[in-house]
Amino acid sequence: MSDFLSDEQLEGLDAYWRASNYLAVGQIYLKDNPLLNVPLTQAHIKPRLLGHWGTTPGLNLIYTHLNRLINQYDLTVLFVAGPGHGGPAVVAQTYLEGTYTELYPSVERNANGLLRLFRQFSWPYGISSHVSAQIPGSIHEGGELGYSLAHAYGAAFDNPDLIVACVIGDGEAETGTLAASWHSNKFLNPRRDGAVLPILHLNGYKIANPTVLSRISEDELSALMYGYGYDPYFVEGDDPAQVHQALARTLDTMVLKIREIQRDARQSRQSGGLERPLWPMLVLRTPKGWTGPTFVDGHRVEGTWRAHQVPLADFQQPVHLQQLEEWLNSYRPGELFDANGALLPKIAALAPTGHRRMSANPHANGGGLLRALDLPSFSDYAVKLEVPGSLRAEATRVLGTFLRDVMKNNLASNNFRLFGPDETASNRLDAVYEVSAKAWMEPLEPDDVNLSVDGRVMEILSEQVCEGWLEGYLLTGRHGLLSCYEAFIHIVDSMVNQHAKWLKTAAEVPWRKPVASLNFLLTSHVWRQDHNGFSHQDPGFIDLVANKKSDVVRIYLPPDANCLLSVADHCLKSRNYINVIVAGKQPEWQWLDIDAAIRHCLAGIGRWDWACRDDQDPDVVMACAGDVPTLETLAAVTLLREYVPDLRVRVINVVDLMVLQPSFQHPHGLPDTAFDELFTVDKPVIFAFHGYPALIHRLLYKRTNHDNFHVRGFKEEGATTTPFDMAVINNLDRYQLALDVIERVPRLHDQLQNARSRYWSTMEKHKLYLIEHGQDMPEVLNWQWTPVAVG
Amino acid sequence: MSDFLSDEQLEGLDAYWRASNYLAVGQIYLKDNPLLNVPLTQAHIKPRLLGHWGTTPGLNLIYTHLNRLINQYDLTVLFVAGPGHGGPAVVAQTYLEGTYTELYPSVERNANGLLRLFRQFSWPYGISSHVSAQIPGSIHEGGELGYSLAHAYGAAFDNPDLIVACVIGDGEAETGTLAASWHSNKFLNPRRDGAVLPILHLNGYKIANPTVLSRISEDELSALMYGYGYDPYFVEGDDPAQVHQALARTLDTMVLKIREIQRDARQSRQSGGLERPLWPMLVLRTPKGWTGPTFVDGHRVEGTWRAHQVPLADFQQPVHLQQLEEWLNSYRPGELFDANGALLPKIAALAPTGHRRMSANPHANGGGLLRALDLPSFSDYAVKLEVPGSLRAEATRVLGTFLRDVMKNNLASNNFRLFGPDETASNRLDAVYEVSAKAWMEPLEPDDVNLSVDGRVMEILSEQVCEGWLEGYLLTGRHGLLSCYEAFIHIVDSMVNQHAKWLKTAAEVPWRKPVASLNFLLTSHVWRQDHNGFSHQDPGFIDLVANKKSDVVRIYLPPDANCLLSVADHCLKSRNYINVIVAGKQPEWQWLDIDAAIRHCLAGIGRWDWACRDDQDPDVVMACAGDVPTLETLAAVTLLREYVPDLRVRVINVVDLMVLQPSFQHPHGLPDTAFDELFTVDKPVIFAFHGYPALIHRLLYKRTNHDNFHVRGFKEEGATTTPFDMAVINNLDRYQLALDVIERVPRLHDQLQNARSRYWSTMEKHKLYLIEHGQDMPEVLNWQWTPVAVG
Repeated sequence: MSDFLSDEQLEGLDAYWRASNYLAVGQIYLKDNPLLNVPLTQAHIKPRLLGHWGTTPGLNLIYTHLNRLINQYDLTVLFVAGPGHGGPAVVAQTYLEGTYTELYPSVERNANGLLRLFRQFSWPYGISSHVSAQIPGSIHEGGELGYSLAHAYGAAFDNPDLIVACVIGDGEAETGTLAASWHSNKFLNPRRDGAVLPILHLNGYKIANPTVLSRISEDELSALMYGYGYDPYFVEGDDPAQVHQALARTLDTMVLKIREIQRDARQSRQSGGLERPLWPMLVLRTPKGWTGPTFVDGHRVEGTWRAHQVPLADFQQPVHLQQLEEWLNSYRPGELFDANGALLPKIAALAPTGHRRMSANPHANGGGLLRALDLPSFSDYAVKLEVPGSLRAEATRVLGTFLRDVMKNNLASNNFRLFGPDETASNRLDAVYEVSAKAWMEPLEPDDVNLSVDGRVMEILSEQVCEGWLEGYLLTGRHGLLSCYEAFIHIVDSMVNQHAKWLKTAAEVPWRKPVASLNFLLTSHVWRQDHNGFSHQDPGFIDLVANKKSDVVRIYLPPDANCLLSVADHCLKSRNYINVIVAGKQPEWQWLDIDAAIRHCLAGIGRWDWACRDDQDPDVVMACAGDVPTLETLAAVTLLREYVPDLRVRVINVVDLMVLQPSFQHPHGLPDTAFDELFTVDKPVIFAFHGYPALIHRLLYKRTNHDNFHVRGFKEEGATTTPFDMAVINNLDRYQLALDVIERVPRLHDQLQNARSRYWSTMEKHKLYLIEHGQDMPEVLNWQWTPVAVG
Repeated sequence: MSDFLSDEQLEGLDAYWRASNYLAVGQIYLKDNPLLNVPLTQAHIKPRLLGHWGTTPGLNLIYTHLNRLINQYDLTVLFVAGPGHGGPAVVAQTYLEGTYTELYPSVERNANGLLRLFRQFSWPYGISSHVSAQIPGSIHEGGELGYSLAHAYGAAFDNPDLIVACVIGDGEAETGTLAASWHSNKFLNPRRDGAVLPILHLNGYKIANPTVLSRISEDELSALMYGYGYDPYFVEGDDPAQVHQALARTLDTMVLKIREIQRDARQSRQSGGLERPLWPMLVLRTPKGWTGPTFVDGHRVEGTWRAHQVPLADFQQPVHLQQLEEWLNSYRPGELFDANGALLPKIAALAPTGHRRMSANPHANGGGLLRALDLPSFSDYAVKLEVPGSLRAEATRVLGTFLRDVMKNNLASNNFRLFGPDETASNRLDAVYEVSAKAWMEPLEPDDVNLSVDGRVMEILSEQVCEGWLEGYLLTGRHGLLSCYEAFIHIVDSMVNQHAKWLKTAAEVPWRKPVASLNFLLTSHVWRQDHNGFSHQDPGFIDLVANKKSDVVRIYLPPDANCLLSVADHCLKSRNYINVIVAGKQPEWQWLDIDAAIRHCLAGIGRWDWACRDDQDPDVVMACAGDVPTLETLAAVTLLREYVPDLRVRVINVVDLMVLQPSFQHPHGLPDTAFDELFTVDKPVIFAFHGYPALIHRLLYKRTNHDNFHVRGFKEEGATTTPFDMAVINNLDRYQLALDVIERVPRLHDQLQNARSRYWSTMEKHKLYLIEHGQDMPEVLNWQWTPVAVG
């Protein structure tokens, strides 16, 4: 085959690649002598060698070739570096493009800047070894593996002119999320969305093992990719010139293919007839640690797992020092940088310019592109309520009508999507289908409903892929909400951890603009999973979230539909947070009209004096957080009215869990004076909580009255049983709460024995009724709030 | 093609299938009239309809056909039901086989038993709608989707005579773990291990959507399975007779293929030449809710997503009642059960007998097969230590030598494996390679080391697949340990939740025998991830674990190598727990000789009086949990010796975190008297903790002295920085701890200003040194413990 690249092109590409590799090796090893102006000595080498060379030359090769492609076809490309520890390569590239210096002016494009560039890498108060938020052009750190492809698709949705080049490491490819993410192509519409160009980089090894995908036959690998719905192209080799030619030729073919797919899809504006195309993907097989030391201490390094981290260490050995010097010189830095350390203009000219530089792609600093959502007035969707407890509603269904119009108002902006693992309808948000279907590129059957290539509801049965899509969508400047069964959101615990870390770091990077918050609606929650049983009952995600930095996380437990509306509206307007909203989907009594709900949610906590006769100097405080605990608390209040007519109860409802923390720990934290005024400094507090009780204790252990808090919540007792029995087996039920009160109010101690036997006989009755009838006893099923008599 | 089954065989299979479907529908709907002896009325129907019909007929079909296969070839088969809500089908099958009645005698094999069987399903105090631990023959609940195939492989490892038939739902197949688990075949040795027979059941729909794999072309699906390394067989249809014929014929072919693969692999005893075979797998495409109502209220139900749950509801409508009766009668119960409700003998005879019944497979009650590990004496591996703090060791490397011999001693028993996501060597457990390599069925390259088809170290770069394998291995009666980077164990949070639920439920099932504990070694932990930075720094997994039932979870933070040995030995001997051990891999000072370590770990907590001059009536208690906090605490003690020579400090080290909880909350909880004796009732306690400080507060908020506890730990500040700086930025460092002490001891208040300025100048010096040298200042790098002067 004749050469694809001219000699000049080939030389240029190779020089650029060598420059980036030189800068990467420099970052890993050097704290001085960046241009090798003097012979290398131990004094030039960092005391702690913390980088990873293995993946670097491959990333640099791909980046360099994408640059050529961008210039050739005037492309807008976002670069996602999936392999772990890709930092040295991507930082080198952003520096070569000039972006790094524009954003960090002290890292100049000269010898002094080179020195800073090298030293800061994996250096205290420097930069990470991953492609973190500090790195221009990045939306994906790659510290924890597996999320690159889902992030890439999230970025491509609704960005028709964007190509997201996603390098997938062959180690990363073994993870669950990555393995599932390939199927994202079933949800990408070539007319409306951009393209994802997956580049599976097989360098053969992970930390200490060969990779699965590098050792299966090409026959199987090719079938696997075709089975995932891609048209795989293969480039392979260890001779740079040959690989440059093959890679350039192949990438050219692939870009033309992408353009053809998009042209075909976009020529006709009808939805009908639009089929999922066979998108091209690349399998690139080059040696791990390519161009690094071939042998070290008699062991082969280049092309093996030994190249994963630092191929050379222990510079007490002069031969290692010599090898490092030879390695660095193998890139012929004198042909790349001038005497001042500036990249030679003819090499620098090979990079794209301005926003075409992948490191300066505006999508990678999505906050800069972010447009606020056009939100309808959420009050218009409120449940109309004359008095508290006078009607039932399904909170998430009410929210669904609001979300429908959020979707509708922003259809033209193409910047809002709803995500969920096959649960949008189950979670009763299906009103959104009135304005947008679910995205679906596969063939339709006659009984299919609400599926369309133009759908903006994103459903795949993988919480991880949904989460990855949403993160990618948000980080490129759009908005979204993910609804999920409460128990199963734990599947993305680790992804949420990583996103929280990203947000924390990004907030410290001056040029990063705020992005829309990551919004979770957790429903089908622990207290109403009688349908599914123990495996579906776990409220612990908020414990995980509460461990994150207080300037990143928010947790809301709206007690009813109107509060849910208010909270959701707030979350959709917020920036740079992880918002968790926990709300039920089942018909439940409603408590606050919309004005009261707005006031309540604004404060985050409040006294519900309408629930009590006189709560000024209470005998006891009954607090609640979450819809079911609120219901049980109010039912307990009605029981207590009957049991102890003269008892003074104060009812406090908590919507915003973070108000409980001290104000020095969380910006929402209530000042101690306000807290003490609400909860008193010495009265018993019976706290009915949605989640594990320990979370409440850890939030308020510094509060004055803490020792008097008695928290009821989920204690890991679950079953396929009735809604009320779930409360009973976890001791959160109204009868238990009423007994808790009587046990803790000293002046009621003469009633204690009586109260206990009443409790036990009620429980006996409950259980017998349950076993006999399979549903809750009438006084529970038909319970209704009775307003406090006036006067 | 001529018929494969004779008429009689076909009739028998179909009758058995109808019987199981009848029982499943009965479980979902009926609380009375189980044999339809009288016309069906509303009174016979459960008040809450909580079952899922959609997946049921497919599971029953497969189970019924596997029964035929077992009898035909005298197979030992374990059944793993991946699809969610498979309960009604599997319960029906276990009942038909008689196992259910053997284990739950009140559910007799007559009309009375049928009634109980039906009522208990999804009934309060009854059984779950999933294939939970209550169900005979199950090792996999299927409540949370995605883990069936990894569980199946875990069960097959080291069980050469076992075939694990794993039904994978097409919804489940979209999850990350499942998508990655297909590659488990790269780790299964046909000579040593059993076979996994994956059955991908495409019924086309999940809750409310078509599934991805059911809508891609057969061409792509076939390629996908081949790409995953399988030889796919396809059976498809909606005519029972035709499907029976095709399925029977195909399963026969597949079993013969499995036998051939195994025979080929087992004929030669040499490792060489053993290649990964192309294992058969089945794609079965039958309608969702097959044989159920075709249309309900004018909508097609059978074969659509509408059949997912209960196809018929709202029995106020007489037509629904009639449809249900017709549906039940369509199975012709009169031809299946006698007048007393017993299955007709000729149908019952089609089931396998004894242990050949999948519901009575001993592997599914693995505790019954469990043999204790032959453990070497862990003391033999101890670090030899004259006095505390006199030498450094890498804790996990020391553990590695013990694990090597655990492996060695149990090689012949084939019942111990070590699991890890490509991190065994990185976690410094590589001594195990002296006796066993890593399992690897792919081709080898010249530079590969420690890989073998016979390897017992299981490494794939998916925490989820590793976890799933280990769970399957444990539940079938074997032992194992999973080592993982601490931060990334969050990837399996949800799997661990589900395993904890399984263990809790199993412990309540009288016939379930205890299994070996799920052992985690979390290393490469938050305080020594300077190498990898913020993304790798998260100690929150123990927070998740602490939320689980106290009779299931144990958390250990051994302060040094000898304590790690003692703890690991204990965990490997334990049963039915989830044990989490957190220990570092870096060289760290050692504190206890092996005898002291054993005593210390037995108590779980202890005063380290060797670290203090006089700790009888202390001014302050310095507590620590975790290796790095212990180091910083002891370094603070040496600083305080210098700052305040007459200060009385007590040092307490916590190994077993659960001792902190009250004894009524956790069996390891220290009685209050012992706790108060250790921590005093009124002295300040400076607690240096490995994880998030809130965990300590929530564990001990009920303790007398709680208000005086001041906890330092990880506060979500991370970076690529030095080990000591990690402590500094989280305020866990020795200088901070010493200052904390001075701030909290009233008699030292006149030294406060002085102490604070000393602290700030030290921090200033530290930071400058760090930025300049890129490593910690000499007084930190070279710090060594000085024993207390005697006399």
